[in-house]
Amino acid sequence: MIDSKIQIVPGFSWFGKNIGIKDNTFDFGGILSKQVCSAAGVFTKNTMPGAPVIVGKEHLSDGRLQAIIVNSKNANVATESKGVEDSKEICRMIAKSCGIEPNMVLPSSTGVIGQRLPMGKIVQGCEGIDREFGTTEQDIKNFARSIMTTDTRPKWVSAKVGDATILGVAKGAGMIEPNMATMLAYFVSDAEVEPQQLQAILKRVADRSFNRISIDSDTSTSDTVVTLCNGLAGPVDLSEFEAALGEMAIHLAKEIARDGEGATKLIELVVSGATTREQALLTAKAIINSPLIKTAIHGADPNWGRFVMAIGKVFQYTVDISQLKIFFGQGHDRLGISADLLDRDAVPLQELTEILQQKDVYVEVVLGDGPYSEKVWGCDLTEEYVRVNALYTT
Amino acid sequence: MIDSKIQIVPGFSWFGKNIGIKDNTFDFGGILSKQVCSAAGVFTKNTMPGAPVIVGKEHLSDGRLQAIIVNSKNANVATESKGVEDSKEICRMIAKSCGIEPNMVLPSSTGVIGQRLPMGKIVQGCEGIDREFGTTEQDIKNFARSIMTTDTRPKWVSAKVGDATILGVAKGAGMIEPNMATMLAYFVSDAEVEPQQLQAILKRVADRSFNRISIDSDTSTSDTVVTLCNGLAGPVDLSEFEAALGEMAIHLAKEIARDGEGATKLIELVVSGATTREQALLTAKAIINSPLIKTAIHGADPNWGRFVMAIGKVFQYTVDISQLKIFFGQGHDRLGISADLLDRDAVPLQELTEILQQKDVYVEVVLGDGPYSEKVWGCDLTEEYVRVNALYTT
Repeated sequence: MIDSKIQIVPGFSWFGKNIGIKDNTFDFGGILSKQVCSAAGVFTKNTMPGAPVIVGKEHLSDGRLQAIIVNSKNANVATESKGVEDSKEICRMIAKSCGIEPNMVLPSSTGVIGQRLPMGKIVQGCEGIDREFGTTEQDIKNFARSIMTTDTRPKWVSAKVGDATILGVAKGAGMIEPNMATMLAYFVSDAEVEPQQLQAILKRVADRSFNRISIDSDTSTSDTVVTLCNGLAGPVDLSEFEAALGEMAIHLAKEIARDGEGATKLIELVVSGATTREQALLTAKAIINSPLIKTAIHGADPNWGRFVMAIGKVFQYTVDISQLKIFFGQGHDRLGISADLLDRDAVPLQELTEILQQKDVYVEVVLGDGPYSEKVWGCDLTEEYVRVNALYTT
Repeated sequence: MIDSKIQIVPGFSWFGKNIGIKDNTFDFGGILSKQVCSAAGVFTKNTMPGAPVIVGKEHLSDGRLQAIIVNSKNANVATESKGVEDSKEICRMIAKSCGIEPNMVLPSSTGVIGQRLPMGKIVQGCEGIDREFGTTEQDIKNFARSIMTTDTRPKWVSAKVGDATILGVAKGAGMIEPNMATMLAYFVSDAEVEPQQLQAILKRVADRSFNRISIDSDTSTSDTVVTLCNGLAGPVDLSEFEAALGEMAIHLAKEIARDGEGATKLIELVVSGATTREQALLTAKAIINSPLIKTAIHGADPNWGRFVMAIGKVFQYTVDISQLKIFFGQGHDRLGISADLLDRDAVPLQELTEILQQKDVYVEVVLGDGPYSEKVWGCDLTEEYVRVNALYTT
């Protein structure tokens, strides 16, 4: 149903370019709609949100937006009232150039925390900006590149729902923990969906996708997922729309996990047999965030005992180890490990190593015979993650 | 008051040696007391504790112990009833050789999870073990080495309280999070202290020391802190005893953080101005466990904005950023950063870099004007941590 190629959505135009915020890579991009759109958004739960998140929530409060403007390399966070004023000024400049209302523009910033935006460069970058928006695939690719920070590749996905098209573009990389909307992702569609319905759909979708990934357990101050619908294609079946958006969001979420800072592997983890939904989710998070599990998977070290440790970190629930089963891999290669195997000294370490050597590592932890299960995604922890982050600002 | 040199405690003898559990480094050690001792212990809160923790708690239940036997390289965890039987068998062998009761022996194991102990090697290692215990400084050093896993150096500390001596030996390295007794530490003394008093003292001491360190947020299944008092020196002033034990425990806790897997720096963090003790501790943990802060400190990157992010991860409390102050360094080099500095574009990044280049990095985060503060210790996150842990079992 979803397509990893770009499909053009009528009525939206895009740009991405370099304005020299940090270096000569793309750092400034935008999306513009001919019509005022139904809009929905979910934002970081971090209590120190960036200025653009504060302004974006305000501008989204009536469920209407017409443009999105993004810069990378600087998050405009911890910049207080002056940072908020900077974000509003950017919206005003875009609005003036494009002939729309300033509160129809949603701003996003991603990058280093604790530095004022270089407004001189941004003012220059906004000059004649209305003429830079275009509708080609290249314009969309330029936008996707402009929002990247330590991402190694741009990320997009598209889908058709009835007569309508949906296109999603996202960035991830670091400071990502599965507790909220956890990065920047923008979906645009020509479907006709009312703002309230769109908000409810987006919240459910984000909860099953972006809120289920972890790269490093840190929680960004800038996370934003926004959907714009311009209505040009008319009404669509809403359950089909939600199914497509959900599949697209899971695709992008997995892409973000796979492209986590320094990551070489995607980990897909299911925790099942839990007695409550909370137990399933807490256990999944304890495992997917465990640096010892992430490093073991990086080295394809068959150190399955570390899963036992991580399961035991969820102090609120006890697990009967004689009931615990851990499955590695998929299909006929799937390998089950349990305490009775250990008892018989029959843990197949060589087979386990081979499964852990794959690029996509599937793990299912069965805690018991409870009815609840949760699926989350993460990545391995590598020396490259440390290198990327030890000298981020310099 | 405390001394980083070994002071001999009358009545206790020690050994440490290699029995070939994994390689030719020391992996088996013990402490033996002539007298039955008052004993106290605190153990991991992990719900999947190792077999030795289960047996140790049982043997400690009457507040009396006479010996401690430790192996490294294998944690005897996730081994179910057979693992418990192995630990009890070790206690029986030690007891028989030394002429004491089996339930007077506390067993500890540390190392890989999910493998049965090599009992053949241990049986051989226990032959004539009573003759291996000695009272020299070298015997104590051998013991301290025998309990090491990925520690780069042995750790001990001693103190005098009145006529009594206290000696502490510990190991740390990885799978350490400040939520409990977080590693192996053994204190012996010739002070006379009743078991109940000793237990209360040890619990308070562990809470202010070992429960305040973090290396990687993972929670070991084997953590054990035990204190033995043989009473040979007679009664001591208990508040002096607790003060000395507390100082010793903080010393060892800091040594463990400093020698965390791959660590190159000790981080000492105070969070003050909190409105509740919970806020202070949650914030301190969010910061000390943040991989992005740990990597930035590793690289001496003046990325103070990441502290803002970590503070904002404590969703239960809001912090007024205009009140927030972050101090780096100590004494007259101490550097304060706050939002108004940023406003004036006056953050002294070069001075901050210099402070972060030091081996001991002191940070104080002042959240507001609340009355609560907490101190915790941690270490930087390095490429070496990943290397050590990616291939731990192989």
